[in-house]
Amino acid sequence: MAFLNENYLKLQAGYLFPEIARRVREFLEGNPDAAKRLIRCGIGDVTEPLPRAAIEAMKAAAEELGHRETFRGYGPEQGYEFLRKKIAQFDYRDRGIEIADDEIFLSDGSKCDCGHILDILAEQNKIAITDPVYPVYVDTNVMAGHTGPVRADGSYEGILYLPCTIENNFVPEPPREHADVIYLCFPNNPTGAVATRAQLTRWVQYAREHDSLLLFDAAYEAYIGPHLNPLPGGEEDAKRQVRVNAHIPHSIFEIDGARECAIEFRSFSKTGGFTGVRCGFTVLPKSVLARTENGKKLALHPLWHRRWSTKSNGVSYLVQRGAEALYSAEGREQVRALVDHYMGNARILSEGARAAGFAVHGGTNAPYIWVETRPGQTSWQTFDWMLGELNVVITPGSGFGSRGEGFFRISAFNSRANAEEVARRLRESKSS
Amino acid sequence: MAFLNENYLKLQAGYLFPEIARRVREFLEGNPDAAKRLIRCGIGDVTEPLPRAAIEAMKAAAEELGHRETFRGYGPEQGYEFLRKKIAQFDYRDRGIEIADDEIFLSDGSKCDCGHILDILAEQNKIAITDPVYPVYVDTNVMAGHTGPVRADGSYEGILYLPCTIENNFVPEPPREHADVIYLCFPNNPTGAVATRAQLTRWVQYAREHDSLLLFDAAYEAYIGPHLNPLPGGEEDAKRQVRVNAHIPHSIFEIDGARECAIEFRSFSKTGGFTGVRCGFTVLPKSVLARTENGKKLALHPLWHRRWSTKSNGVSYLVQRGAEALYSAEGREQVRALVDHYMGNARILSEGARAAGFAVHGGTNAPYIWVETRPGQTSWQTFDWMLGELNVVITPGSGFGSRGEGFFRISAFNSRANAEEVARRLRESKSS
Repeated sequence: MAFLNENYLKLQAGYLFPEIARRVREFLEGNPDAAKRLIRCGIGDVTEPLPRAAIEAMKAAAEELGHRETFRGYGPEQGYEFLRKKIAQFDYRDRGIEIADDEIFLSDGSKCDCGHILDILAEQNKIAITDPVYPVYVDTNVMAGHTGPVRADGSYEGILYLPCTIENNFVPEPPREHADVIYLCFPNNPTGAVATRAQLTRWVQYAREHDSLLLFDAAYEAYIGPHLNPLPGGEEDAKRQVRVNAHIPHSIFEIDGARECAIEFRSFSKTGGFTGVRCGFTVLPKSVLARTENGKKLALHPLWHRRWSTKSNGVSYLVQRGAEALYSAEGREQVRALVDHYMGNARILSEGARAAGFAVHGGTNAPYIWVETRPGQTSWQTFDWMLGELNVVITPGSGFGSRGEGFFRISAFNSRANAEEVARRLRESKSS
Repeated sequence: MAFLNENYLKLQAGYLFPEIARRVREFLEGNPDAAKRLIRCGIGDVTEPLPRAAIEAMKAAAEELGHRETFRGYGPEQGYEFLRKKIAQFDYRDRGIEIADDEIFLSDGSKCDCGHILDILAEQNKIAITDPVYPVYVDTNVMAGHTGPVRADGSYEGILYLPCTIENNFVPEPPREHADVIYLCFPNNPTGAVATRAQLTRWVQYAREHDSLLLFDAAYEAYIGPHLNPLPGGEEDAKRQVRVNAHIPHSIFEIDGARECAIEFRSFSKTGGFTGVRCGFTVLPKSVLARTENGKKLALHPLWHRRWSTKSNGVSYLVQRGAEALYSAEGREQVRALVDHYMGNARILSEGARAAGFAVHGGTNAPYIWVETRPGQTSWQTFDWMLGELNVVITPGSGFGSRGEGFFRISAFNSRANAEEVARRLRESKSS
């Protein structure tokens, strides 16, 4: 009989979002009248319509495929030149970062990339992961056999966890221990924290000293301000943000030496609203090396290229045309408006939570607000209270790792009306 | 320093299609006038416009995403119910095959699925693969560390090869040896062979006796005749095909017992012309078990489900709507017309090759024609001759495995005019 991958059996059964869905369902069964009042600020999924530029581009691409002269079959597995070039130019070279077109690899999303990158790495690597964290980094390492069994607190043996706490402003310093592969995500999901140039420079130094590989998830880089803000005091706030944010890199490749030790993941999910359209990319410089068991140093770029050639036929042509349109003048303006919209929500929600007496983190350069639970309350208790009393779904922090206990995440991905209503309910919860 | 996956280093550098591209480029550099005459029958990529039903559905889906009321973000990782249900109904239940909606897993193509399925299987498995074969099965096993090093003839140590020869009509019988996982593909790429009900029944029996897992690639099932044929003698030929093809299953699940031992891969690439749109699916019955090291038997379905939840956010919504439209009355008619078109080409090309004195296989229930080289000629010599003399690109059989030596593959994916022109050049090559 065929042998199965037993590493899957180490995974915890109750994945975070299905558990949230179960509790919401149960609550609504007992309180059917609450269904209309329910507002979801849980999963980080966009809500606003797709930019018009992307829609028109995808419709035009679909029509192209309907005519023999403009029909296209298999595309390049690593993505079309027209899109790789735009990404390298707009997101990197125009910002003074040296990235070649063929160092961009298109994919159907950065969740997929975060998992697939392990295909080209070996089992011996010591993996370091922040805590709390986007669960995909941990789970894909478990599935690939890079960890031991799970512990009582939900952590896995064999992983080096890097605590993100109030004390370190949710940005961990490099550890004393050696790690071969380190996952970093800034702006961070779930904490909303950003890392400064100085902090990322220390990480690159660590990676150069330890010959480590940084896996840098920049899916939320577009949320680094300044943001146009329609609220009172918005203009002055924006000026202050410009000063502060000059020190917050959008890409790990803004740091000297990162081209030798980092791979970056990006996504159109939270910029162009592509969570259902599916497109992201990996930036893998040709200068990033890794080693064989006997110490030979080789570039990872050809391995990643081969992985795509062998296991994929690339991203849908329509989708690539849609993503390309996000780089047109019109598209960039529409993306900016979407980001500003969600960041306006983040401000409204942060203020609401503060007015309710909560201590609030994040939410200024990221679409996530990381809120401390009331003293003595666990993440799930707060989840149940928010659901039962305010009819608002949030994400309990403990779902992101043991260091997430005592926090909850509010997502700013919503309509303005919903964000305002959640803020109103939060404020009222204080006075009631 | 991070350790890389050394199994990638076992892969042969010269992958088939890049080598073909190199030789064509070199030829055209020396013979620029031949560029206009060049006809490509190499890579199995579709050429005809997409079915109108799919185009309109994808345009409508794009427009839906442009409005708040109809906007959709993340979809179910395993695919939307609307499409899984249509597939299970039309492709299986309507043909008397018991498959539940949630045994269908949508993907961005069956090439991807063939690679990803190894995620849920362990390293200890003894893998059996036909020879010649679609290179992806072999290469993904090499990358996953399931093989030893490559041999001089291009085969890998550790794989059990099943020769497909003229003697067995390119359909191997089950081996005497034990294998845990067996790859089968019918209608076959590259040989164009089909397996009868009796032959597949013997494979299912073998799998039940050996507790093996069959990985059945049915990407070309739609090419099993009868086909509407505009050529003289077409009607009589169609009647004969109906009789013969009653014995050729479209799915491994037409065989009793396959629900306990088989996984099937399917694709919209060669039916709806989706090679650039990207959509396929895996059928994994809940009754398929595999074992742990200590002999515990567990269903693979939950592992595959978890793999998708963790490593993907599903297929683009637009693409899923496009695939759904292929099941409408209009869509099915358009798919049928496309298949008939390519199979008309297959007939024209087969006759041309025969007229040129070649011995021809396949091409009646598959879009590939498998042709014997002239005595004493290797696959690559014939490739060079076809390119230099006829200005036609084909695929040398040896690129598909050592047993492919002495053959070449002509793809029927082309315009009618090109197929007729290639046939004409073949006929003339005989007289010249």
